[in-house]
Parts: sequence; structure tokens; C-alpha cells
Amino acid sequence: MTETEIPEDHPRYASLVTRHRIEAGVENGITSKQGLIAQGRGESFDYLLGERTLPSADAAARAAAATLLLADHPVLSVNGNVAALAPDETVELAEAVDADIEVNLFNHTDERVRRIADHLRDHGAEEVKGLAADGEIPGLDHARGTVDADGIEAADVVVVPLEDGDRAEALDAMGKTEIVIDVNPGSRSPRTADIPIVDNLIRAVPNVTAHARALAEAGPGAQRDAIDAFDADDALAKAEAAIREGSFGAETEPAGGGVSDGAAQNGENPVDESAR
Amino acid sequence: MTETEIPEDHPRYASLVTRHRIEAGVENGITSKQGLIAQGRGESFDYLLGERTLPSADAAARAAAATLLLADHPVLSVNGNVAALAPDETVELAEAVDADIEVNLFNHTDERVRRIADHLRDHGAEEVKGLAADGEIPGLDHARGTVDADGIEAADVVVVPLEDGDRAEALDAMGKTEIVIDVNPGSRSPRTADIPIVDNLIRAVPNVTAHARALAEAGPGAQRDAIDAFDADDALAKAEAAIREGSFGAETEPAGGGVSDGAAQNGENPVDESAR
Repeated sequence: MTETEIPEDHPRYASLVTRHRIEAGVENGITSKQGLIAQGRGESFDYLLGERTLPSADAAARAAAATLLLADHPVLSVNGNVAALAPDETVELAEAVDADIEVNLFNHTDERVRRIADHLRDHGAEEVKGLAADGEIPGLDHARGTVDADGIEAADVVVVPLEDGDRAEALDAMGKTEIVIDVNPGSRSPRTADIPIVDNLIRAVPNVTAHARALAEAGPGAQRDAIDAFDADDALAKAEAAIREGSFGAETEPAGGGVSDGAAQNGENPVDESAR
Repeated sequence: MTETEIPEDHPRYASLVTRHRIEAGVENGITSKQGLIAQGRGESFDYLLGERTLPSADAAARAAAATLLLADHPVLSVNGNVAALAPDETVELAEAVDADIEVNLFNHTDERVRRIADHLRDHGAEEVKGLAADGEIPGLDHARGTVDADGIEAADVVVVPLEDGDRAEALDAMGKTEIVIDVNPGSRSPRTADIPIVDNLIRAVPNVTAHARALAEAGPGAQRDAIDAFDADDALAKAEAAIREGSFGAETEPAGGGVSDGAAQNGENPVDESAR
């Protein structure tokens, strides 16, 4: 089954599409070994969340959209897995909120930044930052702290999906308003964020875009209301509660079911055969 | 940091060693892309379990050891990730309980079976089954159901670590006594097992071996008591409760923390830098 053959109303649509894209990302040299492992970690948390967008995550997406619309210089930070998983969605969000896109990797190499930038341009991005690498995030070593001076360094609002905790904290220390997308509510990055969206990237990015389009129509008053109505600690607590109260051993085979393991396994996941 | 430099009393020893070995498994062509994703899924569940062996998992390991000692023809089924993650531990367990080792893959190819068998022999295995491929597990298609006639097909007790749900059920339907090692108590395989060990493979296999050595000394009466004392449903319920009651946002960075994601990420996990 190719990606276009997966019906959008399939209950496990996000999971199947995600698996497809991440494997293609490996073929294209965009996704790393570490990225595949991280993909698996994400699958488990999304399974525990019920593979759905919680109301609290939807409120976060709405607040994020409002924050981006009200920003002076918003930047979407894109790493290898974000580029592999949601290239079209990222480009659409950037257009909807008039944000820059910047490739920003844990270990910056020009080669990989270029490959990811090419991939994003193939998916419609006009300008992709990250190659100038003439700025820095203070407090991190060089390879991890390199950014563009007129990109993330100059941004007032940054969207950092799938970000590591050290960088999320360093960006926070720079005074950025941070929007984090992450399925583990216990991670340091969502806990550092001004607006943590605890949701699968594949669902969250288009959701922020949809809210941005609606809020652009509704105007600045509605945008400020969306921000005021959002409570980050409450959203994290609700995501955690959803994970704790999730049902195990459900009748439908979960993302992590039949495959999860003492550490790993051979990919013997019956549900995902269609995606291979 | 190489594996031997990781102190065994490091609180995240199993996690760091696991990461090391699985990446080496990729270099050796033993671990697949799917195996890396499965590794990540396992990391999340192990993090939620608290990266420790629960008392109920220890009781399961003890019952498993007793079952293996009392078996007529026990077989340890080994897939690519098991071979990558616990080759020495698997060989030691086979010796302790006088079991066969059989390479058994979700998608059987002679090439991969041979590579994995070589790897196990490099780690001290004398005989490794799986290449004869002259038997079958009824109810599965050919590539997934192929086993050795004098191995898994003839076994009365099978240890299937990191097994997929379909195969666990098919083995169960053959009347095998099944011992499953899996960190997700909601997976079909542990729920199908006679003895589900909900624990990280890296901790579970040596733990079964240690119990086997003690129970071999203690004799058949103690072995039968260990089996009688174990309740599979209760062990699954306790593992699930441990996951639900686990603490999020703890002060120490979790395995899934700072990296887990809407689906995946670039490997930007500060805790794992030492393992790269």
C-alpha cells in the first residue's frame, strides 16, 4: 500500500503515514538511525494517548496559531524527522502565519542541512534558512547551537517540533516564546515551552494551520482570547492523565502492540505490514 | 563512551547498553529499520516502567526459569534485535537450561538467518537452528511461519522475546508453552503467553538465567512451586499499574524524554550523547 492508498479516515492513518514517511526519509538520507529510534518512542506515546488529538492539545494548537499570527518574526525550526514527516504541512503552516522556515539540526552539518532544505523546496518551500549558520544559541556547544542570525536568532516566536530538552531550555533562556510539539508530556521540551502541543506532529501541524486560517479571519481580539484561554500546565496534566487512563490490551492492535519489546524487535508488526 | 566504559551501576545502564548494541546491530546488518523503530517503542515503555524489573516481572522470570528446567525440549527463538541486544545473555540462558537456540525471523531469508547465526556463534553459541527451515507454524503464511522441524516445531516450551502478536497466537494454537519477553503489557504477545515477562530484554534474560541456576540447585519441587506461585493476569495488571502510576517530568531525564515526539526526531537526546 502506498501512502496515497491509505484512506484518510483509517483509524490508524497518522500511524501508517508516519511509518511510510520516516522510512522514505531514511532512503533520502534525511532521517538518521537516531531518528528511527525516536520515531518508535513517539509511536508508543501516541498509542498511549489513543492516537488522537486531545481537546487540550487542540486548545494548544489554537493558542499556538494565535501566537504565530501576533508574532513579529516567527520561525519554524525543522529537523530531519520533521522534514521527513511533515514537509507539505510545514510549508503550509509557514505560509498561513507568514513564518520563516529554518533547518536546525542537533548536529549541524552543511551537507545534511542542504539535503533537508532541498527536500522542503521540493515540497513547495520558497526560502529555507539554516545554511548561513552565522548566529548562535548561547549556552550550547557550537554544533548544537548554530542558527541563522536573521532566522532563529532574531525570532520572537519559534516553533520547535521534536526538540531536545537542552535546546528548548537554551531557546527559552534567550527569551523566545516557544511552541513545542511533542507526544511525551514528561519531556523537558514541552515542559519548557510557553505552548506545549502534546500531539502527533502529523496531526498537530495541519491543526495549527487550520486554527491560524480561522483566527486570521477572526482578528486580533479572538487571537488574544485564544492565548489567554490556554493554560500550559493544565494541558500537560491532561495529556499525562490521558496516558495514565488509556486502555491497555484493547481489541484493536495498538501502535506499540505486538511489537513493543524489551528494547526492540524485528519490525514484526502485523498492523504495519501494509505500510512496508 | 564504549559499552565497556558504561558502569554497570549506572542508573540508565540498560538503556545506554541497549542503544549501543542496537546501533552496532545496524552496522552488522542484523537490525533492520523496523528494528530501530521497535527499539524506540521499547524505550518508551521501559521509561514508563521506571527502567527497572518489577517484582511481578521477577516472579515471571523465576517461573520461566522453572518451566524451562522442567521442559523436555525448550527452544529460545531469536530474531534480529534479540541477537543484537543480548547475544551473550541468550547463549548463557540456553546453556543454563539446556535449550536449543533457533533464529526465527518475521521475514525469513537465508541470508539474514545466516548472518544472525554467525553473530550468535561469535558470542559462544555451539549449535544454532533456523537454517533447515523444514518445519512450519500452521496458520501463518510461508515466510512468517517457517521454522526448523526439530527446533521450534518439536519444542514443548518456547521463549519468544520481542515476538509479534500473530506468531505468538499461532504458537499458542500449536499447544506450545510460551514465555514472552515484552515491555508493553498491552501487546498481544504477552497477553497470549503462559508466562509474560514484562521487562527490558537486557534485564530479563540474565535474570531468567540467574533464577535457573538457583532453581536447578533447589530441585523439581521448588521449580513446580515457582510455576504455581506465578499468575500471568496478575503480572500483566501490575505492569500496567506501574506504567499508569509512573512519574512524569521527573528530575532525571527519562529515556523517552527530551526526544520523544509527535512521531520522531533527529536523535537529539542529551542523555544518549554518550552512547553515540
